[in-house]
Amino acid sequence: MIIVADNLRITLPAIGHAVDRLDPGPIRKLADACRNAGAQAIDINSGPLSRHPEEKMTFLVRTVQAAADLPIVLDTANPRAMAAGLAACTQKTMINGVSLEPEKLKRILPLARQHDCDIIGYLLRPDGQVPVDAPGRMEAAVALFNEMQTAGISPGKIIIDPVVAPLAWQDGNRQNMAVLEVIRTLPDLLGFPVRTIAGLSNLTTGAPDPDTRRRYQLAFLPMLAAAGASMILLNVMDTEIMREVESCRNIIDGGIFTWEPPYSPLHAIGR
Amino acid sequence: MIIVADNLRITLPAIGHAVDRLDPGPIRKLADACRNAGAQAIDINSGPLSRHPEEKMTFLVRTVQAAADLPIVLDTANPRAMAAGLAACTQKTMINGVSLEPEKLKRILPLARQHDCDIIGYLLRPDGQVPVDAPGRMEAAVALFNEMQTAGISPGKIIIDPVVAPLAWQDGNRQNMAVLEVIRTLPDLLGFPVRTIAGLSNLTTGAPDPDTRRRYQLAFLPMLAAAGASMILLNVMDTEIMREVESCRNIIDGGIFTWEPPYSPLHAIGR
Repeated sequence: MIIVADNLRITLPAIGHAVDRLDPGPIRKLADACRNAGAQAIDINSGPLSRHPEEKMTFLVRTVQAAADLPIVLDTANPRAMAAGLAACTQKTMINGVSLEPEKLKRILPLARQHDCDIIGYLLRPDGQVPVDAPGRMEAAVALFNEMQTAGISPGKIIIDPVVAPLAWQDGNRQNMAVLEVIRTLPDLLGFPVRTIAGLSNLTTGAPDPDTRRRYQLAFLPMLAAAGASMILLNVMDTEIMREVESCRNIIDGGIFTWEPPYSPLHAIGR
Repeated sequence: MIIVADNLRITLPAIGHAVDRLDPGPIRKLADACRNAGAQAIDINSGPLSRHPEEKMTFLVRTVQAAADLPIVLDTANPRAMAAGLAACTQKTMINGVSLEPEKLKRILPLARQHDCDIIGYLLRPDGQVPVDAPGRMEAAVALFNEMQTAGISPGKIIIDPVVAPLAWQDGNRQNMAVLEVIRTLPDLLGFPVRTIAGLSNLTTGAPDPDTRRRYQLAFLPMLAAAGASMILLNVMDTEIMREVESCRNIIDGGIFTWEPPYSPLHAIGR
């Protein structure tokens, strides 16, 4: 279970201003903090970058790479920004992402083949809507997996995101149970050990306070881990969540053979 | 997901002394506290009760029943104590439990038929050992389910306990992943929606301190919940754990349709 930091978002005022001013300081600081907190990859959520997309994404990628020697996840719907980010990356890179939406398939998917990088595929219908149940998500997964392979992407480069639903949606629970089922069963369905990713923060979109947000994320994270998610995108600056990541790894992978002192589990974060 | 309190144990000095003196006070107080904390059933873990088993178990059952109007789980390997407890119960009762061990099948199983009550079946081999992997547990489940039906127990009365393994066991992680798989798939395998139960505290047997115990239990509880455990036996006096029970229920059953004030999830404990 690889942890991807979702902390670097242009919607944070400090990051937005730093990008506007091409000031590397705040970005470098945040990337460095993410790595120290246990992040194994960093998602650069740049938004659409409607003005100067190439310049800004290049600046973002170079700044993050200089601060943290970690894989980078390029998270933008703007193909120009994506192309510039890919060109600037010198480390392992993931495109975040495509779906069955025709525009995404046409403009983002070819970049993955061109740069031979990992690419995240969201389980949305071609109209951009989320299928409610597990069969709908499975159908989208099969169609997307085929589209990506047809476009020349090798199956080992594909990471499927079954799209965690906000709890506040009326059918959020059904959707999230479908998310767990997809993560658990998709490799069997596709006959290939396809990797999966889930965005934990989506669960609590609109939640009233940080404590409520954290308690629900803490309850859902082990469900995702036990289902076998390859990667989880989450707030690595939350020490309670990162401590639970460590607990989940020790439960699932078997890090504890004895509690005798010095108790040193196989998986330990920030010690 | 029904929560069974595992708090009432004769190994607690206050409870042991109260049973020896037939003093209902401490037992009543603990049973009452369990109900207030959100317990939906109370496990009476009386141990073997080698001296005066009938008198002591009758006393325990009557005391708990007087304090809390909840189903009772009779948790003893002593058939005489079990029989006396069953005779004294006026509320819904579960026998905890049997396994493929010949002595248990011979002396405990007939009591379930006689009293027409629920009965928990542990997935142990006939020699009392725990099968390490999921196929071993599945094999034990099928054999035990058949034994119980042959003895005249109706399938709806059977609750399967796949036996949570301590993390400190060398193959504890493999065993616990098998536990989750059994809980998830057993109803399909048996062709019957058999109920399942898991004892959460077993996970951290021997853990060095309460904080370590709690963090691993908090990480495993949502895994059990998402796998579909019908009942979980746990420490209901731990408010963090009970809060997570509530979070799991709201995630799985869909208790949150809006975060707007007054935010009132479907599942709320102790509010």
